[in-house]
Amino acid sequence: MSTALTDLCRHPIVQAPMAGGAARPELVAAVGEAGGLGFLAAGYKTADGMHEEIKRLRGMTTDRPFGVNLFMPQPPLVDRAAVEAYRERLAGESASYGSPLGEVSYGSPLDGVSYGSPSAAVDPYGGADDGYEAKLAVLREDPVPVVSFHFGCPSRAVFDALAEVGTYTVVTATTVAEAQAAEAAGADAVCVQGVEAGGHQGTHRDDPQADGTGAGLGLLALLGQVREAVRVPLIAAGGLMRGSQIAAVLAAGASMAQLGTAFLATPESGAHPLHKQALTSPLFTHTELTRAFSGRPARGLVNRFIKEHGHHAPAAYPAVHHLTSGLRKAAAAAGDAQGMALWAGQGHRMARELPAARLVDVLMAELQSARTALSGGTEGSAS
Amino acid sequence: MSTALTDLCRHPIVQAPMAGGAARPELVAAVGEAGGLGFLAAGYKTADGMHEEIKRLRGMTTDRPFGVNLFMPQPPLVDRAAVEAYRERLAGESASYGSPLGEVSYGSPLDGVSYGSPSAAVDPYGGADDGYEAKLAVLREDPVPVVSFHFGCPSRAVFDALAEVGTYTVVTATTVAEAQAAEAAGADAVCVQGVEAGGHQGTHRDDPQADGTGAGLGLLALLGQVREAVRVPLIAAGGLMRGSQIAAVLAAGASMAQLGTAFLATPESGAHPLHKQALTSPLFTHTELTRAFSGRPARGLVNRFIKEHGHHAPAAYPAVHHLTSGLRKAAAAAGDAQGMALWAGQGHRMARELPAARLVDVLMAELQSARTALSGGTEGSAS
Repeated sequence: MSTALTDLCRHPIVQAPMAGGAARPELVAAVGEAGGLGFLAAGYKTADGMHEEIKRLRGMTTDRPFGVNLFMPQPPLVDRAAVEAYRERLAGESASYGSPLGEVSYGSPLDGVSYGSPSAAVDPYGGADDGYEAKLAVLREDPVPVVSFHFGCPSRAVFDALAEVGTYTVVTATTVAEAQAAEAAGADAVCVQGVEAGGHQGTHRDDPQADGTGAGLGLLALLGQVREAVRVPLIAAGGLMRGSQIAAVLAAGASMAQLGTAFLATPESGAHPLHKQALTSPLFTHTELTRAFSGRPARGLVNRFIKEHGHHAPAAYPAVHHLTSGLRKAAAAAGDAQGMALWAGQGHRMARELPAARLVDVLMAELQSARTALSGGTEGSAS
Repeated sequence: MSTALTDLCRHPIVQAPMAGGAARPELVAAVGEAGGLGFLAAGYKTADGMHEEIKRLRGMTTDRPFGVNLFMPQPPLVDRAAVEAYRERLAGESASYGSPLGEVSYGSPLDGVSYGSPSAAVDPYGGADDGYEAKLAVLREDPVPVVSFHFGCPSRAVFDALAEVGTYTVVTATTVAEAQAAEAAGADAVCVQGVEAGGHQGTHRDDPQADGTGAGLGLLALLGQVREAVRVPLIAAGGLMRGSQIAAVLAAGASMAQLGTAFLATPESGAHPLHKQALTSPLFTHTELTRAFSGRPARGLVNRFIKEHGHHAPAAYPAVHHLTSGLRKAAAAAGDAQGMALWAGQGHRMARELPAARLVDVLMAELQSARTALSGGTEGSAS
């Protein structure tokens, strides 16, 4: 490995790629200028849309490194009936928001005909493979400093191709086995995502059988195990909101800490104002993992939509995402947070409405205090 | 507050009280001699049984401090039908292990007639209140250095009475609100228990409505929030197995780290040999929270019993505990780990079969390394 993860930028702080608009170039640029590592989110975008954002970012930042996050293609949808049953269930939502439910592409993304399905024409996002190959082609032709992958692990050929153009690669893992698979395939680093994380869990294969209560691994327990199972550098993610928590994951073996919800609340984030507001609103007391909006487990503030539909949503990503996409936009347009996907990590109440660069500074100051306290043996603020 | 938490012992390491036999005096003595703080578990014992253990511990240790953990009385059982349905469900288990299902006390522990139920005579553990008042009486008459509480928070009068006899008090909390309630009632410290923890979650009020997927708070996310919400010292618990993880929770504001599963595997622990072995056995790949054995969410290695009955178990603690108590003993006697309650935290695979005192030494050495690495800016072993 030529580049160490921490050589990429000044501070051990990563701004999580948040697909759906939050991680826009303004945010990535601000984090980069402040010495952190920002990520653009290519998920749900076309390859061209992703490329436009990269160019826009380059226009507003200096030569600071940044990353682009890709969603991995998903296995073919097997349970069409479950999706159609969920569609029927959501008919009332469609009527009340005056928004039609989305078309679902039933073409298989893995059989090489992902664009051949009848509904591909109405799906601007490239169906179940999220335009993966097209995005990779762009990133090979016009390389970026870092590329990370969510929902799975690419083949060695992909890592080799990105290494050839000087791109540093990261794969998200939610288990020890996933981290080992990423290292074995050739990833330069692993992003260790605890169950506390907001938005989608990056689980490589979505398996409803693994949904047991409390089955998801907490960040610190997972990090400890992954640190002993792989040798590549680790980025720790999940519920981190303060510099003291960053110090914690560094002490436990991570090289960097990745924060999403903390940056979601900044003015540079493109999250909907209602989403930002909801993070600290007394209306929303806790988060859950739900398939209600996308078909894959994702953590969001518990609202009416999750309460009413969460238990009925099938394991059918990204079919359910496309199904509910219009509904969520309509809910946002109507100013109804109860129908939006309010992705948030377990630390959401600690969100601070600071400019992103200022947030990076504050986090670094907190990190330094925690480091000093720990080395001085001052164990806790009230001991 | 006269005594700081960290003045109680040399090292910031607490051995978790593990009810059911693991936290026997041999273990508590070994941890105390090594400079940690050991806990006896009074849960499921009679007041006399608890007192005998305290006296036995005093006979084998010097003047090292130790703690005793009490279960809080539970609200009256409301859904008798659900318990009886679960009893019917377990009839096959009863037949195959040749062990009758236990009697359940339906007396209300809170209406002052907890011993007045017809079945109290066959329940040696004092029914749903776990002999709480009797145990408190013993602890007031023959004080111990530390008393901690699980499953709820005592009244201020209890804290006052214990403070009067010089006992330091701790309450387990799984949410910010529970930590605040403990501080307000007069607890000297709060044990912050993440969802990663093995055995019973110390949730103050068991509410099946709060069972949403991924609803339990990860330790680091919870610790960060509690640290800002209360002023008392914090003990961090949940999935901790290495000194680097102890360093992590100290960095995040805890004064001490509490480890259960790590000590479960030591020779001094009274856990069943099959239970110890199961922690690192390839037969058991993961843990879940389940009501299958006790009626309250507790984390254990997923085995046949949890798979078959977990989803059907009612929220009826301790009724279900008494129902399945004989079954679990019979399974253990038959050498069948698939029918035992294999309590374990999410870090179970990292268990080390070291003597308890040696484990404390190793943890302290790891903690010191992590401290040095963090203050020197060596962020992670492979960066």
